[in-house]
Amino acid sequence: MKRLDHVGIAVADIPEAAAFLTDILGLESDGPAVALPEQGVSVRFLRAGDDRLELLAPTDEEGALARFLAKHGEGLHHLCFEVDDIEAELDRLDAAGVRLVDRHAWRSPHGYAAYIHPKAWRGVAIELRQRYRTGEGGSSDDRP
Amino acid sequence: MKRLDHVGIAVADIPEAAAFLTDILGLESDGPAVALPEQGVSVRFLRAGDDRLELLAPTDEEGALARFLAKHGEGLHHLCFEVDDIEAELDRLDAAGVRLVDRHAWRSPHGYAAYIHPKAWRGVAIELRQRYRTGEGGSSDDRP
Repeated sequence: MKRLDHVGIAVADIPEAAAFLTDILGLESDGPAVALPEQGVSVRFLRAGDDRLELLAPTDEEGALARFLAKHGEGLHHLCFEVDDIEAELDRLDAAGVRLVDRHAWRSPHGYAAYIHPKAWRGVAIELRQRYRTGEGGSSDDRP
Repeated sequence: MKRLDHVGIAVADIPEAAAFLTDILGLESDGPAVALPEQGVSVRFLRAGDDRLELLAPTDEEGALARFLAKHGEGLHHLCFEVDDIEAELDRLDAAGVRLVDRHAWRSPHGYAAYIHPKAWRGVAIELRQRYRTGEGGSSDDRP
């Protein structure tokens, strides 16, 4: 785990949630909201210095994030750590018996991503993310 | 908000929770566990690069953290942002009508600290922290 890439926060409405962070707390925008139809979510990143928060709102009422909101309400959702070699990390965690949501990484707008299951550690969803190299990330079939 | 100082995670037992982070995820220790009797908690920091997680376990069964655990179980607890002038920030937030837990900062082992109320934004507890200057922080009567 090289560094904390971002902290994910589940919200019902991204513009409404982002307004407090930008207008009251003074965080900076790190790009517009982006829809991730395969995940059933829309996400928007905000920055405090080099650190980032990811707001996630459901776009699919049957999806995992909608279920999270129905059960827990809005709030802190996951930690994301940056790694250099996500498949090697997933192999290592699987071999150590750690429960994974994703045995292999998938392509997100910001890099290859995979989740450790919240039941693996204290109910906390932990995402791993490997940044794309230059020129990478153009195809949804990409694998790290 | 200059940067994210740390993410706080509520746990029942610090050594047990820390073992996964250090032994499985490879995070580094950022010092031993420290008891904060006035807060009714024990805390321990861990690092991933320059980023930090704070594990918090209750030492007072009647305290706020024990109540949080009874209600929510273990999991993500708060975000902490570093600020340059915490009293000025609290004045500004109060004037903006933001609900605060602490109208003035208190002395923590790592700096002056104060919480914004979770009801102010999406159920997320947000801590502000101002680092001590060299030589500061020796007395619990210190005020920023």
